[in-house]
Order: sequence, then structure tokens, then C-alpha cells
Amino acid sequence: MAKKKLRIGLVGYGFMGRAHSNAFLQAPRYFDFDYEPELVAVCGRDKGNAEAHAARWGYSSVETDWQALIDRDDIDMIDIAAPNDMHKDIAIAAAEAGKMIMCEKPLGRNADESREMVAAVEKAGVPNMVWYNYRRIPAVTLAKQIIDEGKLGRIFHYRAKFLQDWTIAEDLPQGGAGLWRLDVGVAGSGVTGDLLAHCIDTAMWLNGPIENVSGLTETFIKERMHNLTGNVEKVGIDDASLFLARFQNGSLASFEATRYARGHKALYTLEINGEHASIMWDLHDLHRLDYFDHGDEGRVRGWRSIHVTDGDQPYMDKWWVPGLAIGYEHSFVHQFADFLTGLEANEPALPTFRDALATDIVTDAVLKSAETGQWEPATA
Amino acid sequence: MAKKKLRIGLVGYGFMGRAHSNAFLQAPRYFDFDYEPELVAVCGRDKGNAEAHAARWGYSSVETDWQALIDRDDIDMIDIAAPNDMHKDIAIAAAEAGKMIMCEKPLGRNADESREMVAAVEKAGVPNMVWYNYRRIPAVTLAKQIIDEGKLGRIFHYRAKFLQDWTIAEDLPQGGAGLWRLDVGVAGSGVTGDLLAHCIDTAMWLNGPIENVSGLTETFIKERMHNLTGNVEKVGIDDASLFLARFQNGSLASFEATRYARGHKALYTLEINGEHASIMWDLHDLHRLDYFDHGDEGRVRGWRSIHVTDGDQPYMDKWWVPGLAIGYEHSFVHQFADFLTGLEANEPALPTFRDALATDIVTDAVLKSAETGQWEPATA
Amino acid sequence: MAKKKLRIGLVGYGFMGRAHSNAFLQAPRYFDFDYEPELVAVCGRDKGNAEAHAARWGYSSVETDWQALIDRDDIDMIDIAAPNDMHKDIAIAAAEAGKMIMCEKPLGRNADESREMVAAVEKAGVPNMVWYNYRRIPAVTLAKQIIDEGKLGRIFHYRAKFLQDWTIAEDLPQGGAGLWRLDVGVAGSGVTGDLLAHCIDTAMWLNGPIENVSGLTETFIKERMHNLTGNVEKVGIDDASLFLARFQNGSLASFEATRYARGHKALYTLEINGEHASIMWDLHDLHRLDYFDHGDEGRVRGWRSIHVTDGDQPYMDKWWVPGLAIGYEHSFVHQFADFLTGLEANEPALPTFRDALATDIVTDAVLKSAETGQWEPATA
Amino acid sequence: MAKKKLRIGLVGYGFMGRAHSNAFLQAPRYFDFDYEPELVAVCGRDKGNAEAHAARWGYSSVETDWQALIDRDDIDMIDIAAPNDMHKDIAIAAAEAGKMIMCEKPLGRNADESREMVAAVEKAGVPNMVWYNYRRIPAVTLAKQIIDEGKLGRIFHYRAKFLQDWTIAEDLPQGGAGLWRLDVGVAGSGVTGDLLAHCIDTAMWLNGPIENVSGLTETFIKERMHNLTGNVEKVGIDDASLFLARFQNGSLASFEATRYARGHKALYTLEINGEHASIMWDLHDLHRLDYFDHGDEGRVRGWRSIHVTDGDQPYMDKWWVPGLAIGYEHSFVHQFADFLTGLEANEPALPTFRDALATDIVTDAVLKSAETGQWEPATA
Repeated sequence: MAKKKLRIGLVGYGFMGRAHSNAFLQAPRYFDFDYEPELVAVCGRDKGNAEAHAARWGYSSVETDWQALIDRDDIDMIDIAAPNDMHKDIAIAAAEAGKMIMCEKPLGRNADESREMVAAVEKAGVPNMVWYNYRRIPAVTLAKQIIDEGKLGRIFHYRAKFLQDWTIAEDLPQGGAGLWRLDVGVAGSGVTGDLLAHCIDTAMWLNGPIENVSGLTETFIKERMHNLTGNVEKVGIDDASLFLARFQNGSLASFEATRYARGHKALYTLEINGEHASIMWDLHDLHRLDYFDHGDEGRVRGWRSIHVTDGDQPYMDKWWVPGLAIGYEHSFVHQFADFLTGLEANEPALPTFRDALATDIVTDAVLKSAETGQWEPATA
Repeated sequence: MAKKKLRIGLVGYGFMGRAHSNAFLQAPRYFDFDYEPELVAVCGRDKGNAEAHAARWGYSSVETDWQALIDRDDIDMIDIAAPNDMHKDIAIAAAEAGKMIMCEKPLGRNADESREMVAAVEKAGVPNMVWYNYRRIPAVTLAKQIIDEGKLGRIFHYRAKFLQDWTIAEDLPQGGAGLWRLDVGVAGSGVTGDLLAHCIDTAMWLNGPIENVSGLTETFIKERMHNLTGNVEKVGIDDASLFLARFQNGSLASFEATRYARGHKALYTLEINGEHASIMWDLHDLHRLDYFDHGDEGRVRGWRSIHVTDGDQPYMDKWWVPGLAIGYEHSFVHQFADFLTGLEANEPALPTFRDALATDIVTDAVLKSAETGQWEPATA
Repeated sequence: MAKKKLRIGLVGYGFMGRAHSNAFLQAPRYFDFDYEPELVAVCGRDKGNAEAHAARWGYSSVETDWQALIDRDDIDMIDIAAPNDMHKDIAIAAAEAGKMIMCEKPLGRNADESREMVAAVEKAGVPNMVWYNYRRIPAVTLAKQIIDEGKLGRIFHYRAKFLQDWTIAEDLPQGGAGLWRLDVGVAGSGVTGDLLAHCIDTAMWLNGPIENVSGLTETFIKERMHNLTGNVEKVGIDDASLFLARFQNGSLASFEATRYARGHKALYTLEINGEHASIMWDLHDLHRLDYFDHGDEGRVRGWRSIHVTDGDQPYMDKWWVPGLAIGYEHSFVHQFADFLTGLEANEPALPTFRDALATDIVTDAVLKSAETGQWEPATA
Repeated sequence: MAKKKLRIGLVGYGFMGRAHSNAFLQAPRYFDFDYEPELVAVCGRDKGNAEAHAARWGYSSVETDWQALIDRDDIDMIDIAAPNDMHKDIAIAAAEAGKMIMCEKPLGRNADESREMVAAVEKAGVPNMVWYNYRRIPAVTLAKQIIDEGKLGRIFHYRAKFLQDWTIAEDLPQGGAGLWRLDVGVAGSGVTGDLLAHCIDTAMWLNGPIENVSGLTETFIKERMHNLTGNVEKVGIDDASLFLARFQNGSLASFEATRYARGHKALYTLEINGEHASIMWDLHDLHRLDYFDHGDEGRVRGWRSIHVTDGDQPYMDKWWVPGLAIGYEHSFVHQFADFLTGLEANEPALPTFRDALATDIVTDAVLKSAETGQWEPATA
């Protein structure tokens, strides 16, 4: 039986453009779908770069104007891997054109933008998903299974942090290709939207809604040369962002993100402590899940280091044999696979735009709290 | 040359009484002093228990009334290892009697009590010290050396947590021997004074004063049977306590303590991130210090796991050979050794009552902030 | 400029067939070559399976007779991913047909087979390589760089083990698809050729030739049902294989492989101790390299856990950003990339058939020593 | 009720003399016995050193002639902490004098010496024990419990190593105080008797007798200045010693000891793999035991890191609270406690001289095999 085509138009050929393109190509090698992805066009401001991306990844054509991409009727799905300041306009236009949409995180630069985007896709009724890829690391998905099975019991604590160290140098400029994450106009915020957003997405998926937050942010380096203007300009992003929170289920939480934690490259860790069991995970060793089960016999009880590479663990029946790890990019492969599976089942793949809006509401609350010095509600 | 005697009177024969008595006996086996400790008397409410402690540890006599202990003129130093609610009265009386004083932490049940205690010892001019023993774990002392040498550069982040899980059971009673830490009247607070106080003491020693805090506390189990009354009574302590902080040096911090973190017995961890280097330590593997030096050659740079058992590392020339670890009680041995060394040099051993007051001011601020929902100043 | 084609014919569509096909497709996405691989044909005994593999991975055609594959003149390179007993005949025929050859490890079922294969490719003068993929794990390649730079000084010790636990169950049959590794007629040996061969290849690459060996083998489960005959038959393979060795550089070594180490899925570890520095690596955390440099300042010296994910570390400039790990299959991508780079430079990519023969000479010596109870020479 | 005295005479005031003296003093503080140890005399060649040891640890008197010590009738037990070459004569004389004997390991410099010692104590019928202290690390004792309960099932593999790096420097002399372990005349052998003996003692306690061995030894640095003669002399000890073994229960083993493993201070590790479960332990983190139970639910199965600090774990009810570790010297405290408990129960405390002889028989076989190049039997 011939497969249905999912004709893809990608906006953005940077780091995330590569990760998405890889997912489109790899998913059908390892998973079975009724759909077959077809890489129709990649769109980017620089035609040469777009053509290079197309040649390397197998896109049939290029565009330099995203509206032109959306106007094409040989495209079913628009994948947004452009900088944050372009998410809203592209997504709304794509929705209005009836395209399915996959969008890089964070959804908008703030919750107001995200609300417009949610309204647009829901009005259009198009499948939509946001690339919070860490949900699809097998160890994290396994954590979700464990929690859903009730193994943890009543939850007391959640803690997450995302620590990096790549912006400590004072002579690192802001703005432009590769560095737009330091430009508040483009990014919307600093680590709050970039890193905390990941922590919050996973946290609410695992532990439910957040009630309120008390935030603390800092910009350690106040001025940096701006690559686009050539001038030394005030840095508008938050370099570090921490918050305390209460979840609706009564548990307490601590969150932190920074790009000034010397020695940590991308140390996203999460831990959840329940009455009966606890779980820890760490992106630096992404193929492991640490699990403590108080039900184990006392004398031989201890944290279990689960090497999540077996066929009965999430997604791992698709890859190699026990003991052989997969890596970072596989989380995107899994998410795209889940999107296709969702299409076939006519069910949304998570997180939807609406789920991602909930995260943006929390990040907005964190930033507001950091300004007001008050606890702020974190629900719409 | 004959050694000077340091004649010791101990109040309290519980967990801490044992740890202190061990320190008094072990220090002279491994260190060299002009002073020789003499275990003169142990004091406790139950005469049989006091006598048993005396017999086991070699105290020459017992008392059941602490005032009688203080009134004895064959005692130079009063060591307070009684529950928190007795610290103030004993310390003030001892100071007035001109005794040197060593006091278990926290100093008072709150900063007001501690202020009176500080006033008393400073008026009396007696040597005084508080048993914040974790400063004397060799790995922690090494951390202090590294920081003092400037290896870290500008500090961006400090984070500490102290996680336990021993009070999760709902049928655990409060109050009485072994459980007075759950009785707010005796303890003053819950994990804030018991566990966070340790974290704060170390943090301010390593990273300087804390400017202000935003706190969050919770009592997960609202009522427990009280061992002394036999009634189910409201629980007054905080089961969990978290706070964000700004240090005076501009660094940001996150602190957390709880007795509801399933899987953690006494997981006191601390981490400090500087411009050039970072440090991590963990009480569960207390003989190791993790150290990241950005100055290492890039390709072979990584967190170093330092096995702190060599003769050139703090205190370790007194013990065994490289590779052979010491344990928890040695931190008390070291602190008592430092006290004696301080006496000989006529210099205070740290932390003094005044240092410990600074910690109580922070814990008060945390508890107040948890009530007001505001950031609160953490300095006197 | 148009790229040159490298037209590939693959024999075998099992586990290794997938790993190789993935490498052919992924390498050009991440590396830049003058050559462009073209997946021309896949060959396997079962036509349906071959067609499924072709459809999934993009091969243009299928064959069911490997000689037919070799006879085709639209193929430049024969990749052998068939069971061990077919390596020799295919390789020799391919060499005689003037094809380049990539062959799964071990090269032959024993050194005699391998010698014939080496003679054939060297006589034909065709590029040839054996898939000892673990050399191309970035952490292992980094170890090689460190050693080549002389950072270790005189070498005293080498130790390696490869521990698995997948054949402990007595009711696991031998023979046939997926289980031919238990059939000595097909595999040639048990863990000696399957697992120790990997350890030996890496060891000789890092530490030079092995002088002599003392071996010990065991077959714990003596009889298993044979899938192809339906009968319970004697097990001919070695379940476990250990040996001591002297390297030509004077260092001592210990090697071990087994499929009966409960709790280990694919724990390939290696360690090398030199006068100035030491290195450890572990396949279960393949993205890390542990490194100890005695030249570090004494008090803060410790094993460094290097997270090998930075752009200045081997191969990692091709993938993501610091902190984001790659996985198992990437080692094949790297090896194929090195093969293409070698072609362009007209230099052999390592290990060649001749290099792999040296490994088979060692494994033969281990098996012989296990029989004779004597030390056996490990060089040709 | 008055306690019985156990009047102790110690020979040797070095590293082990301190460890034993500490045990004599600490055991009664933490354990309850009918016996009360009394430190009667310490004996050493240098009177000043002996007096210093006596003053520090509380011995009432000193001797400089061990025969004089044995001749005293106010001593019940002779503890031998002198260098290896003195063990035999002292032990035999002490036995003939009817003294109980505790002896540092290894028992003799070789099995022949040990046989004479065993004969002497058995003829005299005196309680005797050898200080193989690592059996009494709580985690190791827990391993023994787990094995005795049958949790592992059929055993397939045992592996142990003891890695140090303190003799790599070529200018380290041999002989004399602190360095007699490098003098073959005094020590009997190098790492074989010093380090491998520990590994073998634990191994046979946990896994039963060893059948035969194939050994490999090396002396990396052939000549060193001798401290006692002032001359550069041939080094007679083995710097490294490895062997393969078969246990009588059919399991295979690999052992290794060296003082040339850069980065390891005293890394004694052991691992045992059974059909149902496996165990690992590591002296560098002596308070942990790693345990893998294949019976755990598959998806959440992993190595458990057991923090052996709870009251239901061996010896730990005597010390602090969960999470608070003890260290190296506590293993001696436990062994002395077991000796006293054995006395009270009129049962031998393990290992006896006869048990320790079995270890020396294995070490002799290893050294012989290293010479002959043959497998050698390891039983008497």
C-alpha cells in the first residue's frame, strides 16, 4: 500500500534546522508509519545557506521568503526553526493557510504572543506541536511512565536546573547568527525562555500545573558588543533565572537556569521525590535514569542507575541492542515519530501549542516576580 | 613539659553527646596539643543514662542539674549538647560563671535567643565556639582553601541542599527523646534550624554574607502524636524549607532542606560556580571534592573527583595513608582540635557564637519571608 | 563540482547491516566529502527481507546471491555484514573482482582465514577496512590522541573487559537468525572473537603489539537447543574468555570477556596506566573519558570526567553543541567518514585487513593457551 | 558485674600499631562486651618511639625486646604489628607461652612460615586471628550476607584488583622504616603478599576455595637505593602481580595488584557475578555497595548504589545515623569487637591463622606460576 506523503516546508537552517531535518530523515528508517515525510522546501534569508542546507538534507527547493513558503500548495506542514521573534507571524500565517505546524520552543517570546498563536491554530483546526524534545529522551519518557503508574505516591518535591557556562567570557558579543539568544529583542528573554522553559515543560508534564512562583534573575554582564550594530549595547536578557514554586498537587519546587555555571555544558537535571519512590535524570548522561524504590528490601535498598537501552524501555526497541546508547538528536526523531503516529490516530501529539502556552505563562510569571519581588500566580 | 588540663563538663548524652565525647578522646591520639582534655563530668536529666555515658566515655562524675555542673570549679569548659531549648540558659549561666563554652548548633532557637548568648559570652570574654562540624570535613576545608586562594574568581552561583527522608511516615510521633527535633517548642523550627543552618553556615564561610532571601516552607504532615502528652497534636515545625538568596558579593543562591526527599539519608550538597573554576561537595561521599578548573587544557578538561585522603590535604596528615577514608565523627575531632589550637594561640576558633548568630539571622529571615511572601533582609 | 560516486553493495541486513546503512546515509549529512555514497544494492538470502531493507534504507536493488552482487559492475565497494563464516569467501571474491571492501569484525573465524583474506586484498591492491567501530567513539579517539602526544609516559598497565549477560538463560537456543553468535561453526568462537576481539583491536591501537598470552575459557552451559536442527546440541563456543598478556612495550595486561556477568549489558571498559597519567573509558557512558594527570597540583588532583562533546574533541565539531551527546551508531558514521577521507587522500583507513589479522592472531593464541595451559606467543 | 580484663601487649608502633591501638580503645565505646581491653605494654626496637606510642595511646609500659613482652605474665594477648619477617618467631613464641594472638597480615612471608605458625597456635590451643580487616568494612560484610542468603545463585565470575601508585618514582628508596614493604627480605614478596593477599582473603571468604592459578609478575624498577645499606641494590619484590584463577565452585576469576597504577591510591575493588544477582565494592568509596538484582522489574532494573549507613546493615547500629559514613579504621574496630565476641562465645574469630594460611598458599602458587609459566594448584 502506498504511503501518504507528509510534505514538509522548513523555516530556518541553523542548529535546530539541522536537528529537525535529521529527524525527518531518520524517523522512517527506524519507525513504521503510514506517512512518508517528503522534504519539499527549506526557507531562509540567505539563499546560499538555504541551498546548502537543501543539498545536504535533500530538500527539493528553497525559499527566501517564509510567506512564499506558506503560499505553496505542495506543502502540508510548516516547521518553524527560525529565531523566536519570527515564530508568531509564521505560525499564524501558516495556520491561516491551513498548514500543520511544528514550532521550536519557546512558542512565543512571551505568553501574549503565544496566546495569539494558540488562537490561530485552534481556529484553523490544524495539527500543531512544539519541539520540547526532552520529553522524548527515553529515560525521561520512562520517568513519565513510572509516575503515571503511581509508583511514587504523593509528591513532595520537584527540582530542576539547567546549567551552562558558554557566555561567561565578557568579550562574547550579542546578536546575529548563532548569538541571537543573547539579543532580548529576538529571543524575548534569556535563560528563562531558552532553558527554564524546557525544565518547566517537563515538570508540568510529569507533575501537573504550577500554582505560583517567586523568581530571581540577574544579568551578570551588563553590556556586550552587538554583532549587528557593531556597538557596545546594554544586555537585555537574563543571564540567570531561579524560582521557587508550589505545584497544584501541593509539592514544592526549585528551578534554576544559568549560563554562568562554570563546568556545566548543558546540565539539565530533574528530580522528583514521592512518598514511595524518587527519580533523578541528567542530560549529561541522558541514557540513564536514577530510581529509588523505598519498597526494596531495606538492607539492599539504594538508588538504581537504570541504563535505558533495553527493548522494553521507551523507544529503545527501535534502535540497537541492550547497552548501546543513543544520543541527543534521537529525541527529535522520537518527537517527529510521535507526531506522525498522532496524525495516523487523529490525536494531537504533545505538547501542543496550548501546552506550550502554559509554559510561557509560567516563564512570564517568573520574570514578573523577579521584578515585583512578590509571589506571582503561574496559571492563566 | 606537663600539659595543661582542659577540664570538660558535658551537658547531654544523646547523639551529639556521643559525637563530642568521641572528639574529646580521639583528638589527642591524632593531634599534638599543649592542652590535655580531661572528661570531668557529664550532666543529664536521667541519672542512669548519665552514669552509663560516664562509664563508657570515661567521665569521672555525673550531674543531673546543669546549674550544679556550672557551679563546679573543677570544670573549665561547658559543652552544650542538650536540646535547643536549653542552649540559651545554659550558655548564659556558663558565661557568667566564666567558663569556656562549646555549643551545639543552632546557637539559639532564634536570633533573639542567640543575641543574648552572644552578649553573654562577649561580656564574659570567654572562648566560645559552635559545633558547625561540616566546616571541618577535609574536603570542605579544602574547598575553603581553594576559594581563599582565588582559584574561582568572581562568584556567580551558590547552591546547597540538605535532603533527608526519615519523617515521611505519618505514624512517626513528635517530641521526647530522639524526636524532639519534631517538637517546635523544643527545636525552635524544623529543617530550617536543623539542616538549613548547616548549609548557611558553610555558605557564608565560603562565600560571605547573604543580603536577602525569599523563602518557602511547608509542613506536609499537619498532626502527629506527641510522645510526651500522648495526644495527637498540631505539628509546628517546617518539614521543608527552601529559599533563594542574593549574596553581598553579587552571586545568586538556591537553598533547600527537607526530611521528605525519599532516597536521601543525609544528602548535604553544596556547589559554587566561579568565573574560573567550580566546586561541588556531597556529604554522602564526604571524602571527595569535585573540582572543575577552566584553566585546564580544553580537550582534556573535566570535573576532577579529588579523593581527599592525602597528607597535603586538610587534616589528613593526622590519619592514615592516601586512599583510606575517614568518616563523619572525624569532623568533630577536627573541630575540637582547632578549638584547642585556638586556645594555645589565644585566637578564637570558628565559628564563634557571633558567627553562629549570623546564621540564625538568616534562618529567621527565611521563616519570616515564608510567612510574608516578601523578600526579607538577611543581615542584622 | 560534481562529487564522485562510491557505489555500495551491502551483504547482510541484520543488526550490522542496519548500522552500516545508517552510516552510509548519515555521514554525508554531517561531514564533507568529494565522494557521494550511493546505495546500489543489498544482498541477503531472504529476498523479502532484502527488499524490506532496501526500501527502508534506500538501496536501489536487491540480490540474493552474493556472487551476483560481486559480479555487478555498477558497484565499487562491497560491505560485508554477513555472519562470520561468510566473510572469507565473499572478501576474496570481491578482492578478485577489484572491489573495495569493508568487512565486519572479526575478519575471519580464525587467523588462517584472515591470512587468506589479507593476501587477497593486498594482491588486488584494493582499499580495505574492518569495522572495529569502537576506535571511532570520540572519547576513544581522544584517548589515542592523548597517548600519541606522550602524556602518559612509560606504560605499566593495560586492562580491558567486555561484560554482557544476555546468554545466562539455559533455555536460550543457539543458531539461526540473531543467535548465530552461539553457533561455533558460524561464529568461529564465542566471546573471544565477538567481544575480546574489540578489546584487542583497541588495545593494540593504543598500546602496540602484544607479545604473549595466558588464556582461560569456559563454556558454562554445555548444551543448548539448536534452532536450525531442532536438537539439543553441544555448545562449541566459549562463554567466557580471560587472558593475561605482556605487551611488547613491557606493560602488563588483563583482558576478560563474558556473556555471564549479570547486570552488564555491553560494558566494554578499558584502562591504561602510565608513568605520568592514566585513562579510563566505558562503553556504558561512551561520551565520557576519565583522565588522571599526575602533573596537576597535588591537593586538587583527581580523575577528570571529560564530557567529550566539544568542538575541539574528535569528530564533535560535526554534531551538536557542547553537552549534547551522540550515541553508538555514530562510531560507524565516523568510521565510514574516515574511509571516504582515506580514499580521497589515497591512504588506507584503519584498521585494514592486515591490522585485523593481528587481532585474530591474538585471539587464536588466547584460545590455544586456554587449551595448552601454557603461555603462547601472540605475534605471527 | 565487673568485666573481665583482656590484657594486651602490642608489638610494633607503626601504621598498623596505630590502627590496632585505636581499635582497642574505640571498640568498647561503641560495642558492649564482657571483656574490657587493657593496654598493658607496647614493644618496639626504638625505646623513645615505644614510649611515645605508649603515652599517646595509653599503654602502661614499654618493652624493647619482644621476648620480654611475651615473658610477662600480666599479658593475655600478643598483637603482632611488626614487619612480616618477625611474624613467625613472635607468634610461635607467644603460642608457646600460651598467649592469645592477633597477627597482622600476611601471616608469614610464605606458606611454609605460616604452616609453622598454624601448627604452633593449634598445638597451644590459643585463640588466634589475622587482621584481614577488609572483611569488616560494613559493605563487605553485607556482601557476605547477601551471598550467604543465596541471592546470587550459581556464581560465574569473580574479579578483584588492588591498585596503588605510590612507588612509581624511581628515586624512592627501599628498606627501613616506612619502606620495608619494598625490601623482599623483610616483606617476603611485593604486592602479592601486601595487596593480593587482601583480595584473596576476601575472595575465598565470599566465594570459597581457589583451585588453581596462572600468574604474571613484574618488577618495573629493577634497582633502588637501600635505606639500610646506603647502596643501590637489586629490587627483589614484585611491583605488580596478576593472576587468573578457577574457583572450586566453577567460577572464573581475575586478580591484579600493582603499585604502578597512576591515579589510584588504594583502589581495592571486587565484583562477583551470579546467575541472579551481582555485587561490586570499592575501597575508595568503602561505605557503598553496588548491587544488581535481576529479579527487579525489567524496565526499572539497574545497579543499586547502597549507602551502607543504616542500623539494619552490619555494624552500623553501633555508630551514627543513616547517611553518616564511617571510615577505614573502623574495620579494625569491628574486627577487634568480633574477636572479643568470639572469646565470649568461645568461638574462633575469623580469619584464623589456618584461614590465613590458605591465602598464603594461593600467593605462593601465584608467585610460582609466574616463574614456571604453568598453571599451579592453589590448595595445600
